[in-house]
Amino acid sequence: MTIRVAIAGARGKMGSEAVKTVYKRDGLELVAALDYKHVGESLSELEIFPPNLDVPIYTNLTQLISETTPDVLIDLTNPDSVYEHTKEAMLHNVRTVVGTTGFTDDQLEELRSLAKTNKVGCIIAPNFAIGAVLMMKFAKEAAKYLPHVEIIELHHDRKLDAPSGTGKKTAQMIAEVREARRQGHEFETETMPGARGADFEGMRIHSVRLPGLVAHQEVLFGGEGQMLTIRHDSYNRESFMGGVVYCVETVMTLEELVYGLENIL
Amino acid sequence: MTIRVAIAGARGKMGSEAVKTVYKRDGLELVAALDYKHVGESLSELEIFPPNLDVPIYTNLTQLISETTPDVLIDLTNPDSVYEHTKEAMLHNVRTVVGTTGFTDDQLEELRSLAKTNKVGCIIAPNFAIGAVLMMKFAKEAAKYLPHVEIIELHHDRKLDAPSGTGKKTAQMIAEVREARRQGHEFETETMPGARGADFEGMRIHSVRLPGLVAHQEVLFGGEGQMLTIRHDSYNRESFMGGVVYCVETVMTLEELVYGLENIL
Amino acid sequence: MTIRVAIAGARGKMGSEAVKTVYKRDGLELVAALDYKHVGESLSELEIFPPNLDVPIYTNLTQLISETTPDVLIDLTNPDSVYEHTKEAMLHNVRTVVGTTGFTDDQLEELRSLAKTNKVGCIIAPNFAIGAVLMMKFAKEAAKYLPHVEIIELHHDRKLDAPSGTGKKTAQMIAEVREARRQGHEFETETMPGARGADFEGMRIHSVRLPGLVAHQEVLFGGEGQMLTIRHDSYNRESFMGGVVYCVETVMTLEELVYGLENIL
Amino acid sequence: MTIRVAIAGARGKMGSEAVKTVYKRDGLELVAALDYKHVGESLSELEIFPPNLDVPIYTNLTQLISETTPDVLIDLTNPDSVYEHTKEAMLHNVRTVVGTTGFTDDQLEELRSLAKTNKVGCIIAPNFAIGAVLMMKFAKEAAKYLPHVEIIELHHDRKLDAPSGTGKKTAQMIAEVREARRQGHEFETETMPGARGADFEGMRIHSVRLPGLVAHQEVLFGGEGQMLTIRHDSYNRESFMGGVVYCVETVMTLEELVYGLENIL
Repeated sequence: MTIRVAIAGARGKMGSEAVKTVYKRDGLELVAALDYKHVGESLSELEIFPPNLDVPIYTNLTQLISETTPDVLIDLTNPDSVYEHTKEAMLHNVRTVVGTTGFTDDQLEELRSLAKTNKVGCIIAPNFAIGAVLMMKFAKEAAKYLPHVEIIELHHDRKLDAPSGTGKKTAQMIAEVREARRQGHEFETETMPGARGADFEGMRIHSVRLPGLVAHQEVLFGGEGQMLTIRHDSYNRESFMGGVVYCVETVMTLEELVYGLENIL
Repeated sequence: MTIRVAIAGARGKMGSEAVKTVYKRDGLELVAALDYKHVGESLSELEIFPPNLDVPIYTNLTQLISETTPDVLIDLTNPDSVYEHTKEAMLHNVRTVVGTTGFTDDQLEELRSLAKTNKVGCIIAPNFAIGAVLMMKFAKEAAKYLPHVEIIELHHDRKLDAPSGTGKKTAQMIAEVREARRQGHEFETETMPGARGADFEGMRIHSVRLPGLVAHQEVLFGGEGQMLTIRHDSYNRESFMGGVVYCVETVMTLEELVYGLENIL
Repeated sequence: MTIRVAIAGARGKMGSEAVKTVYKRDGLELVAALDYKHVGESLSELEIFPPNLDVPIYTNLTQLISETTPDVLIDLTNPDSVYEHTKEAMLHNVRTVVGTTGFTDDQLEELRSLAKTNKVGCIIAPNFAIGAVLMMKFAKEAAKYLPHVEIIELHHDRKLDAPSGTGKKTAQMIAEVREARRQGHEFETETMPGARGADFEGMRIHSVRLPGLVAHQEVLFGGEGQMLTIRHDSYNRESFMGGVVYCVETVMTLEELVYGLENIL
Repeated sequence: MTIRVAIAGARGKMGSEAVKTVYKRDGLELVAALDYKHVGESLSELEIFPPNLDVPIYTNLTQLISETTPDVLIDLTNPDSVYEHTKEAMLHNVRTVVGTTGFTDDQLEELRSLAKTNKVGCIIAPNFAIGAVLMMKFAKEAAKYLPHVEIIELHHDRKLDAPSGTGKKTAQMIAEVREARRQGHEFETETMPGARGADFEGMRIHSVRLPGLVAHQEVLFGGEGQMLTIRHDSYNRESFMGGVVYCVETVMTLEELVYGLENIL
């Protein structure tokens, strides 16, 4: 069976990668694009796509659904429009794979209940990189047995915030299973401020910023006589595409809303 | 509640560490040692233990059990005697934590059925290092999503065999969930033989041997645009003791035989 | 002072990066391109370059030199033409930075003697990645004190040969200062062939090939109670550009031929 | 030729390792120990040494020198006595290898001038781990070409101060060749204080403290499209002994004072 796929946000960085990935992938068929511009055109007419990409562009989701009958809508647009798209798709029994965050709690609750009522799958994935999600999932698991944890996240030096979103998310996930506890020596002192990193319930987070780096993270667990290290290296945007495909295939088997790739791995 | 513990093999490398660990640990009480020598003496009379370690040594397990009523027998002896110890202990409803391997399939089956009948827990753990067991468990999980795998194991240069037991075990565990597949370029050539390492169903295993190293292993998973790495470093024998304690505590809650720490983590 | 630069091979992968790098770089001016096609045109007329890149293309090097008076010729073409270019440039007292290999010993000798006679600098650099060259240089230095060495090189799985050129080069450079010696246990055995990697005078070389990887190498040195590791990660072609600029600036101060970036770092 | 060696501080942690190392080493002969206790006894009478270690103990260095004629005095005592020992040894033309720090500038100057006048070698080495010293030396060299640097040092969680002495020393050595410069994004912000680590002239230093760890450090250099990493792992005190032997052998060829192993590697 071929899964019919529509993509919202096809002209964005993630979206244009997704277009190419879905187009090439056996078992998936790209049937439409949703956009607020270029309506009535085909993706093949846009410069960023190859000329053989003959996929119609719609601005009205209801029309898109009725004319191209997609099984799944991949939504890679921004938080402003994604809630409306997702709701409308599910009302029409179209499954959704959503890569943006920024839903309010009320919106999430509504979508969750709509998914259940209509028995239509929906996956909301703040992070599509399977390797990164596995890293976080394993880190949460390991912390149950090895509760002394430090996180080192390493990114290019054009990144504005420290620690990274993934670094914080990892610490939060670990904190769900690890009681807050002070780490390091009781009388430890920093002779240079900041040396011991940021403190999240006793876990330490260190942010490295260097040119050349892309997006990397290590989670270190120490125990008597041993160390366990879980590391993820993301070299480019392709790292997300395996996760997108996995979600499209998995959402076909779901009858509810799942938040976070870690819950279906 | 304090768990009463007896140890077989107390004079060995692992055993003497276990003696010290159990002795110091809150919630555990070391009540007896099983040995074929030094019967009637106390551990405190042996040079390798501190003089305050007043723990009686028995050579007859039935007598040991009736006089010291242990809850758990930790057996760190060799394969020759461990089967008899384990069976006898379970017949007396004493739980067992076994650190040696080398059971025959028949013996295992018998112990497994005895555990079930008597509803007495038994844990057989070829590897007590929690970090190493987590590494293998996570590697098996990751391979489902990222099936391109290479293993690098690194040990001191007095090690005789390559690859290491843990290296092979990891590959075997991964092979349970990963179909055999060729890795690397279809027309790949080794201009120097051995460069691409050992081949286990397409996975590659590389063995590094250097002075200074202790026992280390990395499992590398590659996917488009990303890498996931799981690494364990074992620096000394203390790394096993956390696992021994964990098993003693866990076996109290079991009514069956469990083979491999990975099945209770 | 601005250094006037001409580039041969501007349309190639390395060459087009070099064009952009030189064009943007303060202190360098791109005055001409040498090509066997597009003569009389400007780089700005080729699709791969931005329209403001108004740099004339020549096919005759003598004419290029007389009309645009470059200080340095960067040659990123193939071995067939590079010898002639280099010789002719030096005869006209134009310094050269050459990124290809494949010179015969006789050609190298002739160029070396020409450079000395004319007191004109020439740098031939098989590898422009400063980090990779430093890794090799440091590895050679470290092996004097820590002669137990293993090399792990990791590349994408579309690479045909194992070990990599850099892996072999590193081993060769180390072998210049390290007497051949067997490593590992005297009675070491491979229970799976290839586990211990390729053998280069006793050093072991391991080649990892996984999707997602780019070009990486670790050199591990073991000593009693310690390890020294030198690692280089190359994420993309930009890693070469710092080395190209460094060579252009350095060749201005040379009056001889230097082979290998390691000799001017 | 056999080098005759005396050791001050033989009963300390480093000293007792040095005694065993010198005793076993071909080409070295342990002729005396200097101590303020146990005078007139032999090392073999102390419990911490094997009974065959028949080496006389002196408390008077002049007497030790005249009776046992050592070529080299290894001094592993504390700062209080080491200055007097070193001076007296050199006045008697005995070479010295000193493992403690804490000399005043005046003392150093006096010893330096004494070494030159008497043409007697003296090596003062705050760190005997050859791998660690090579790491620092290479880091200083690399920073000339790749000035974006971050240091991650990792130690056991009983360590009191952060960053480590080696971490600071590495940063200081790099600062000798690298102009102070801000690293990271101009508008970078820490959403959790300390995430970006300690700041040393723009270089960032991160201190990890976990049980299980021993003493480890990574120096990371970032450049466009690449990373260079230099790492040292110290697993136990044996890592210092190679450096002690190297110093004893090297000091025989010196006619001056050298401060820091990095200056003779």
